[in-house]
Amino acid sequence: MKFEVTILGSAAATPAYGRFPTSQVLNIQDYWYMIDCGEGTQMRLTDFHVPRNRINHIFISHLHGDHCFGLPGFLTSMSLNGRQEELHIFSPAGLQEMIETVLRISASHLVYTVHYHVIDTEKHELLYENSALTVHSIPLKHAVPTSGFLFREKTFLPNFIKEKIVEHEIPVAQIPLIKAGADFLKADGTLIPHHEMVYAPVPSRSYAFCSDTMYHEAIIPIIENVSLLYHETTFTEEFKENAAWGMHSTAFQAATIAQKANVGELIIGHYSARFQDFQPLLAEAKRVFKNTSPSSDGSVFSVPYLKNNV
Amino acid sequence: MKFEVTILGSAAATPAYGRFPTSQVLNIQDYWYMIDCGEGTQMRLTDFHVPRNRINHIFISHLHGDHCFGLPGFLTSMSLNGRQEELHIFSPAGLQEMIETVLRISASHLVYTVHYHVIDTEKHELLYENSALTVHSIPLKHAVPTSGFLFREKTFLPNFIKEKIVEHEIPVAQIPLIKAGADFLKADGTLIPHHEMVYAPVPSRSYAFCSDTMYHEAIIPIIENVSLLYHETTFTEEFKENAAWGMHSTAFQAATIAQKANVGELIIGHYSARFQDFQPLLAEAKRVFKNTSPSSDGSVFSVPYLKNNV
Repeated sequence: MKFEVTILGSAAATPAYGRFPTSQVLNIQDYWYMIDCGEGTQMRLTDFHVPRNRINHIFISHLHGDHCFGLPGFLTSMSLNGRQEELHIFSPAGLQEMIETVLRISASHLVYTVHYHVIDTEKHELLYENSALTVHSIPLKHAVPTSGFLFREKTFLPNFIKEKIVEHEIPVAQIPLIKAGADFLKADGTLIPHHEMVYAPVPSRSYAFCSDTMYHEAIIPIIENVSLLYHETTFTEEFKENAAWGMHSTAFQAATIAQKANVGELIIGHYSARFQDFQPLLAEAKRVFKNTSPSSDGSVFSVPYLKNNV
Repeated sequence: MKFEVTILGSAAATPAYGRFPTSQVLNIQDYWYMIDCGEGTQMRLTDFHVPRNRINHIFISHLHGDHCFGLPGFLTSMSLNGRQEELHIFSPAGLQEMIETVLRISASHLVYTVHYHVIDTEKHELLYENSALTVHSIPLKHAVPTSGFLFREKTFLPNFIKEKIVEHEIPVAQIPLIKAGADFLKADGTLIPHHEMVYAPVPSRSYAFCSDTMYHEAIIPIIENVSLLYHETTFTEEFKENAAWGMHSTAFQAATIAQKANVGELIIGHYSARFQDFQPLLAEAKRVFKNTSPSSDGSVFSVPYLKNNV
């Protein structure tokens, strides 16, 4: 029951010090999703052993090059390798024209189907859903229309407390109904409430990706209590004018958002080429929000599946 | 007086085994030129310490993605880094539309000027010339319009044999004329021919880049006697049907071209992802043309400046 984020690129607009531009993959219960696809993403997938053909959904935050210039190469390489599965790409408007122009002029024909889904970056809404999770957009505030993404596992049915079967003589056929929320009426007329027969449900795990964006408190109610928050930290406070000019965030601002939204853990990244090392950014964020971790290309962040109440 | 080729990417269409797609830079007498710009080229320039702002001329062989998908990122990164110099890009038709569409949709504004020059891929003609060299196109035979490139240093003026000044009482003012080809008329009426007063001229160095192409003998007269030939070797003979299908060359075919054109050295590259190692390709080429060298990402090939007759 994995819930894992792999960072493929931790650089801001210009790659530097071995850091590639933004891309991440999520492995949630063995389904794979990609967020952003900067230049070189297809090489990073190889470097970090990601099964690229298991990715059927790509979420592009915005159309600045460092978040999408890896798409033409990634799409054509998968075609050359004989990919058959349909691919869904969610992004702000314009991406389809960009990709289709590049493919046409480079005489590239994809042997599989791509479905383009346009995100309304002004709205917080459901983009995608399957049996395991939902993906919602998060309206961000950047120089171009930009959306963050909230991945949230669906709640699992609670586990049954086996001792209650004997105690209340519960027929096996009733168990799925009780797990789904029903109470149980005993033969003697006693009503056993649902919550007395099941363990507390496992909390659903969640991941919020917020890049690129300036400090934007409107996202707080959306990302409140998420297990993991990736929030860009392009600069330290020392360069807060640069951050404001580019509509980016400082480490202090990202950590303030994490603290106000009461998230489980903050991951920082999208480091300006000005920083050879992430330590100043990490130190600044930790002063506000202790449970902050730095991302590097190849970092993996997992949210454990809590079994302690099974 | 450098004449040096640095291989930035040695892979064919899909990057594999740490090999990036095609790109090379030439350093000729401390002027830098780029040939092709596959995805990730900007990272490779950093990896191999190439001064990117010294590159003012880029030559794109054809518009397949593995030869040009690195351009949008490379161009925008240079802009973010404040490049001022104008940039000239030579390529088959279509590149300007591709790049301008990508820049427009990604809201990227370049702060320097790019001049696009369209190559007529049917003709062998002069593309560019400066005081040090000429660059000619080489019509290749591939699935889309494709041009190779022939870089040739201009001939240096021969060095003067100093002892002749005293022997023939040659006025200093005459020396530049004699170096440029004039004979010398002595006071006593004797004519001293030009070639008796100068060393044999240093042979001019040359580099031919031929990728992508199927076996194509029409290029032989164009590349005859070049110092260095890069000829693609996507496959071995075992996969010659694949080569024919994709309009690529086998190592045997590349070496046959090198041998017939009597080149100084053959560099092989553009290896299919089918090959983890270049050894089978190298062995096959060497059986036909001994002075064959394999390229890897980061390889540097130099042609020495011959001083032995100075």
